[in-house]
Amino acid sequence: MIHETQVSEERTARMALGTLVEPGCRELGMLVRSVGAQEALARVIGGYGISDQLTGAVRARLRSAGLHGAADAGEQVAAQMGELAGRLGARIVTAADAEWPGAFDDLVRASREGNMLRRDTDPPMCVWLRGPLGLAETLERSVSVVGARAVTGYGGYVASEFAFGLAGRGWTVVSGGALGVDVTAHRGALIAGGTTVAVLACGIERAYPAANAAVLEQIGAEGLLVTEWAPGTMPHKTRFLTRNRVIAAASRGTVMVEAGSRSGARNTLGYARLLQRSAMVVPGPINSAMSVGCHIELRQPGTVLVTRVEEIIEEIGSVGELAEPIHGADRPEDDLDPLQARILDAVRARRATSAEQIAAVAGVSGRDARRTLPLLEELGFVVSSVDGYRLRSHPRAEVGEEEDR
Amino acid sequence: MIHETQVSEERTARMALGTLVEPGCRELGMLVRSVGAQEALARVIGGYGISDQLTGAVRARLRSAGLHGAADAGEQVAAQMGELAGRLGARIVTAADAEWPGAFDDLVRASREGNMLRRDTDPPMCVWLRGPLGLAETLERSVSVVGARAVTGYGGYVASEFAFGLAGRGWTVVSGGALGVDVTAHRGALIAGGTTVAVLACGIERAYPAANAAVLEQIGAEGLLVTEWAPGTMPHKTRFLTRNRVIAAASRGTVMVEAGSRSGARNTLGYARLLQRSAMVVPGPINSAMSVGCHIELRQPGTVLVTRVEEIIEEIGSVGELAEPIHGADRPEDDLDPLQARILDAVRARRATSAEQIAAVAGVSGRDARRTLPLLEELGFVVSSVDGYRLRSHPRAEVGEEEDR
Repeated sequence: MIHETQVSEERTARMALGTLVEPGCRELGMLVRSVGAQEALARVIGGYGISDQLTGAVRARLRSAGLHGAADAGEQVAAQMGELAGRLGARIVTAADAEWPGAFDDLVRASREGNMLRRDTDPPMCVWLRGPLGLAETLERSVSVVGARAVTGYGGYVASEFAFGLAGRGWTVVSGGALGVDVTAHRGALIAGGTTVAVLACGIERAYPAANAAVLEQIGAEGLLVTEWAPGTMPHKTRFLTRNRVIAAASRGTVMVEAGSRSGARNTLGYARLLQRSAMVVPGPINSAMSVGCHIELRQPGTVLVTRVEEIIEEIGSVGELAEPIHGADRPEDDLDPLQARILDAVRARRATSAEQIAAVAGVSGRDARRTLPLLEELGFVVSSVDGYRLRSHPRAEVGEEEDR
Repeated sequence: MIHETQVSEERTARMALGTLVEPGCRELGMLVRSVGAQEALARVIGGYGISDQLTGAVRARLRSAGLHGAADAGEQVAAQMGELAGRLGARIVTAADAEWPGAFDDLVRASREGNMLRRDTDPPMCVWLRGPLGLAETLERSVSVVGARAVTGYGGYVASEFAFGLAGRGWTVVSGGALGVDVTAHRGALIAGGTTVAVLACGIERAYPAANAAVLEQIGAEGLLVTEWAPGTMPHKTRFLTRNRVIAAASRGTVMVEAGSRSGARNTLGYARLLQRSAMVVPGPINSAMSVGCHIELRQPGTVLVTRVEEIIEEIGSVGELAEPIHGADRPEDDLDPLQARILDAVRARRATSAEQIAAVAGVSGRDARRTLPLLEELGFVVSSVDGYRLRSHPRAEVGEEEDR
């Protein structure tokens, strides 16, 4: 049994580490997993048993905060953060808390196995949250919807439809709060009265981008705003990439709606694949620059093409949540067997011909024709007269103009 | 060594069989492979050693031609066909001729292995040709481009571009001569001054559909018109499906451009897969009915998504004919390593800050910042002053507005 004090000390250490070290640091993650968060914090602040890079990085942050050399620097940092969270109406959640989603810890695998260029793939030390929902529970049935900032009308339509449909079926829509696909997905979920989570790459208090301030505010009130970064942190380009791993880890799968060839969304999709989550991609016109990245990904193995909400749910839902196959409109002749269809094909529209002539045209035996034509008449496809059989005049498309199988 | 007489008798038998039996007949194909074409013809006309269906079907055609009971019915049929071909400016090619493409015989496999519903998958007995080119040679480097009759502007654009690009690179474009994607592909190849082959589902003399008469005429003059059906044969729905197997077998791979959920083009693609040819599909908007069939196919394993002519050629061309990867525009910061990129991210645009402050923001050590910033200055990304470093004002997009990886 873990004592409350222990939990509290663990929380404190992780909060301090999350502030002093830029998120995703693999070296720190390995250290915490090996000696625990409190001992890791002591080493990180004391500057022993870790690399010069990490020592130096922590020292730079401690100096900047005026805490370098303070014996209780870690506790002070954590206390400041806790106070700040309270003031901002936010809370900090760590692996020591019940709300922590186990899914985040899958990132250990991404960090260990990945042959990714970047080393900042370790799980978060802590996350800042704003919103009325529990994090783990909210992410239990969730899907990430990501894509280009420079969304087209098509991508906007798809993001909105998918998010609306997913949220309406009880799925949490996770995205990055950015312009374009992200905000459209968040809005689609909100409009459905569903749940949406925005994972930010900056401080929780920052309405970034400014154009999305109202939506982010609404997400903080009804859904969840999530970030690994302490208040005051600016969104940097590299932070977006680091953040993307959390978007991928948070959900059961990632849907990329639109993406240019260099879109950051491809990075999120790559993490999803690395984490053995479903990597789902929406196709688009091949002459749209905003689908180029989608098609590059779809040409890679392990990517699933999705065109409907049902297909997404089939991919990430429980066993049995299968998408209905797509059917064209049924046609009366669908139920004919190949021989019947072939004989019907040989019946002329206006002029009646004999069963023998029909057989010769169709390339079947006279016996087959004589046996089948009365059945076709019974089914309403042909009419007979003394001259033989002709098609009934009612709706049957011109032969050859159809695209039937 | 095969005597000319033998070749001639083999040709005669195959020509007669191709006329008397509806193309693709598996039973006939097996018989010919087992006892030879001449013996097969004798049995088929004599009505022994074959099924009642086949006996009856041949009898119906012989009766219709007034040849039932004639001892030399087979020779008479072949002679009539040869004469007809001469009058129509066409020629008949069989497996006994040098022009016969070995690729057609792969259909034996489709017939034998396939769990297709339909049994008319055997190779052609003979084909009627019109055009100045040798068949086998023309199909040596060929690709089939197929799709919906009810093509959209998008599909028309893609079919035209692909056919033009493929033909311009020396690839023969095979299609079915139909409205929509087919004719657009034929035209694209003709416009490129390239080679195109139309595989018809009716007699060679028939300009079907009438709207394509001029293009079919041009194909007959510059490329090749191909059909298995004797002159006078009407295009039937089931014949289109039977014909599709030849389109798939003729080429190294089939590209499906647009297709509704029930499009016959999906049938052609299915044959391509069955024949272990490349089954290539062009994606499109998910809200286009004419891409629904494409996306259904793309969700199946073994289908290759293609967006460029280069990708098609990479798929079906010789070793080394690789498509250039798609790159976004290069950016100066592409060459920075992760540490450099992270430090650059932390430099402010307008206000100079010290290396130590930059280190604290970036989460790197002061030493790394002090070492890296002069390099970034040398590369033209930042400028230094007594107060520290700020970004150079020249083109660098607002941080976070980019979609970079």
